[in-house]
Amino acid sequence: MQHDQDAKDRRGTRREGRSEKIRARTARNAIAAPYTIRRIGLVSLIDDESIAIIERNADRILDEIGMEFRGDAETLDLFRRHGARVDGERVRFDPGWCRDKIRTAPRVFTQHARNPARSIQVGGNAQVYCPSFGPPFVYDIERGRRYATIQDFRDITKIHHQLAAVNHSGGVVVEPVDLPVPVRHLHMAHAHLTLNDKPFMGAVTAPERARDTIEMCKLAMGAEFVENNCVLYSVVNTNAPLVMDETMLWALKEYAKAGQCTVVSPFVLGGAMSPVTIAGTLAQVLAEVLASVALIQLIRPGAPAAFGTFFSPISLKTGAPTFGTPEGTQFQMCAKTLADRLGLPFHSVGALTASKVPDAQAGYESQAQLMGAAMAGVNFIIHATGCLEGLLTTGYEKIVMDADRCSAMMRFVQGVDFSETAQAMDAFHEVPPGGHFLGAAHTQALFETALWMGDMSDNGTYEQWSAEGALWEHERAALKVRKLLQDYEAPQMDIAVRESLDDFVARRTREIEGETA
Amino acid sequence: MQHDQDAKDRRGTRREGRSEKIRARTARNAIAAPYTIRRIGLVSLIDDESIAIIERNADRILDEIGMEFRGDAETLDLFRRHGARVDGERVRFDPGWCRDKIRTAPRVFTQHARNPARSIQVGGNAQVYCPSFGPPFVYDIERGRRYATIQDFRDITKIHHQLAAVNHSGGVVVEPVDLPVPVRHLHMAHAHLTLNDKPFMGAVTAPERARDTIEMCKLAMGAEFVENNCVLYSVVNTNAPLVMDETMLWALKEYAKAGQCTVVSPFVLGGAMSPVTIAGTLAQVLAEVLASVALIQLIRPGAPAAFGTFFSPISLKTGAPTFGTPEGTQFQMCAKTLADRLGLPFHSVGALTASKVPDAQAGYESQAQLMGAAMAGVNFIIHATGCLEGLLTTGYEKIVMDADRCSAMMRFVQGVDFSETAQAMDAFHEVPPGGHFLGAAHTQALFETALWMGDMSDNGTYEQWSAEGALWEHERAALKVRKLLQDYEAPQMDIAVRESLDDFVARRTREIEGETA
Repeated sequence: MQHDQDAKDRRGTRREGRSEKIRARTARNAIAAPYTIRRIGLVSLIDDESIAIIERNADRILDEIGMEFRGDAETLDLFRRHGARVDGERVRFDPGWCRDKIRTAPRVFTQHARNPARSIQVGGNAQVYCPSFGPPFVYDIERGRRYATIQDFRDITKIHHQLAAVNHSGGVVVEPVDLPVPVRHLHMAHAHLTLNDKPFMGAVTAPERARDTIEMCKLAMGAEFVENNCVLYSVVNTNAPLVMDETMLWALKEYAKAGQCTVVSPFVLGGAMSPVTIAGTLAQVLAEVLASVALIQLIRPGAPAAFGTFFSPISLKTGAPTFGTPEGTQFQMCAKTLADRLGLPFHSVGALTASKVPDAQAGYESQAQLMGAAMAGVNFIIHATGCLEGLLTTGYEKIVMDADRCSAMMRFVQGVDFSETAQAMDAFHEVPPGGHFLGAAHTQALFETALWMGDMSDNGTYEQWSAEGALWEHERAALKVRKLLQDYEAPQMDIAVRESLDDFVARRTREIEGETA
Repeated sequence: MQHDQDAKDRRGTRREGRSEKIRARTARNAIAAPYTIRRIGLVSLIDDESIAIIERNADRILDEIGMEFRGDAETLDLFRRHGARVDGERVRFDPGWCRDKIRTAPRVFTQHARNPARSIQVGGNAQVYCPSFGPPFVYDIERGRRYATIQDFRDITKIHHQLAAVNHSGGVVVEPVDLPVPVRHLHMAHAHLTLNDKPFMGAVTAPERARDTIEMCKLAMGAEFVENNCVLYSVVNTNAPLVMDETMLWALKEYAKAGQCTVVSPFVLGGAMSPVTIAGTLAQVLAEVLASVALIQLIRPGAPAAFGTFFSPISLKTGAPTFGTPEGTQFQMCAKTLADRLGLPFHSVGALTASKVPDAQAGYESQAQLMGAAMAGVNFIIHATGCLEGLLTTGYEKIVMDADRCSAMMRFVQGVDFSETAQAMDAFHEVPPGGHFLGAAHTQALFETALWMGDMSDNGTYEQWSAEGALWEHERAALKVRKLLQDYEAPQMDIAVRESLDDFVARRTREIEGETA
């Protein structure tokens, strides 16, 4: 990083001379819309006959083997009263039963952000890009890998607030391991609500934590509003194969009762937690989603829900999860088809990588996963930014590198302009064979908007790149991270609201510490 | 690279203990077929109405503006005699004229390799992955960037010979700048024919160099065979907009007369050499291909040809070409549709990047371009391995990194297995909810074949990766390059054939030196 200061100085000088161009570019690249509408077709990887087979197999799994819902008598009773076959904690379902129950789930819904301009559509042709969820470690090229703290959580939330290609503030963007587990959710929700004004995710680690998160939303957005609208989007993982444990079950119940969105996302390491084949895993995942979303609709008909997937084939070499594989994308594309058939929004993974560092492996794998997700038509792309080490680590540089690729994907899925202006027939009469289009009126008129332009790739000459310090992308990304943290300005918030959130966190911390003391 | 030796030692130890597994894996991943058959659908980015518009615009461009064919009276005369409107070097075409002439071009053809097991299909649902073409520089992490030599050319050809995910030996994999220009083609063809037994490309820099390459193929594969079969695949770039220069024209004529394949690939920097829009560029490229392939068919009806594209939007910041952009893939997918409509095989670009080094930018951009090409259904993917710096440099590490991703794409486009075995219904009865599939009979039976497994990504734990030297992907790639060069064994060749090739190069070198002395 010895070249940082030089590079920054040069950048400073250059910036003034080109401020006009850069302003124009910034305006052009700003994602005005809080989400992207996909206007291109899907890739067909599964034909009608195979769809019918997978759906029949899922029905058979639910009928013959069933799914276990653990540790909650109320759930088992609810299933029994509505006609499912309950045997201990194992619940079996007649073919078609689950499909019938989930008809009340909305095809499309809005998750409201504190800032209404940031509210997102979930489902239909909408596409939302959301940060990584869950890593206990953070990485940056200067300090390396270390346990994450609440300061990291806040810094990452500040970075995401400023990235136009990220539509969501996420959930556990990193685990703040310096805080006691029972109070972490309070500080995470506080950060999401005060440092970022995009929508965010609810805690799923205990029912009272879910309730706390809902209460904090009520303070920030009004109790009545929260009672009547979806303001939290929460991800519940099944314990594949065919189990939902007590913790996830309780979170699902809390959010469903409150009319908040619950995504049912079977977490599957292919070959270990599911069959080693895509066809087998699809049937299992469909079965788990059918039963779990049916439960949501039994608890509160009409509560928003989504069909989620997290599929990673395990490595033959190490038994570890792998990313950026052909099977990962194939699975996602097929699962999207199954979700469409159920009329549920589809949630799945974005820029995942097994790499420990922001190297070429991280680039190849993340781009493969992200492009697969975008082309699969995933409605809510989780883990779209920051993933390293298969979600054990969030990388600071990786966040801004991934976000640049998200913005490219947003542009890609919006399709091609075939308007008369785009056809450029006048330009051909202006520019002779062998001529140059740069000065043509058509080019000048469209230059600022016609092409996507990222901000992380170096496209200049070798000589210029060398003169600027010969920085690799992760080194340029480190400079951008520093700048984003320096330039950060908190989104506006009414002082009374802010104080009520501060007070809530303080009071609940005292109560929880009292309980656990 | 201080950890290399440690890492190698550890690898050595591990290798012996796991030789069985690794043998199985190698066998599984070896691409037995010399090309891949795509079995998945395409992404639709252009509807019927827009196709009709682009085709009409291309016809209008050819009719109203025309294309220039420079420096060759014979070509102009040929066009004139067949009814095109020739005015100086500008040739204009009535709507439909070119389309009518190209009907004789084959939809699918075979390019024969010296080793018949390596011969490729071009067109239809076949997909071929071919090295980068043209860079004057090479890069490796130890020595950095430098001018390429014939030794680099040979080493790169040896590496490609051993990579199962590369189907072709390519053409100018690097420019051997240590050799005089007039004899370079002899040494390049000699390397392709003796160090690699995959198909390769013909020289296009002068007509006598094209003839030399054809002669060398006759020595290696038999004169009669070469006269009656396609053994060379050569890429002719138009000088966009709407010009074909003398050099390219003569190469096109030589190969067409000899019944060898000529790909017409307009080289376009969008916004400079074509309009700044995809719709405008598509019409221009279609016009150039129509006129040029029509010429090939006038010279020799039935000569194999292909519709090629090289499209890179220029950067607003630097005016330089950009790669891995949404427009690059959008353009490619639309152009594939136009090629299908003409019944021509489609040739386009693979893992391109503007990055100077094998960093994350190289990974993101290359994967975006390569995955776009694979999903677009490109039949012949050129620049699939090794590109750095927008084809000014071939990177040694980049070759093996890209090849790993090619093998993933090959697997992806072959689609998903929905057979009864893949459905795994027995496994669900064997593994209870919450159980583990790893030991199931179904998993054990399919484990070696069910999942793609690359050899460049590190999927192990952080601790294991650290113990192995904490190598970034480009460092692991450098080790693989070294090993491939150490392990290289030349493909078999009859000693008389080899001597005839050596003699030909020696004789032609003397003649050329005599001419130029």
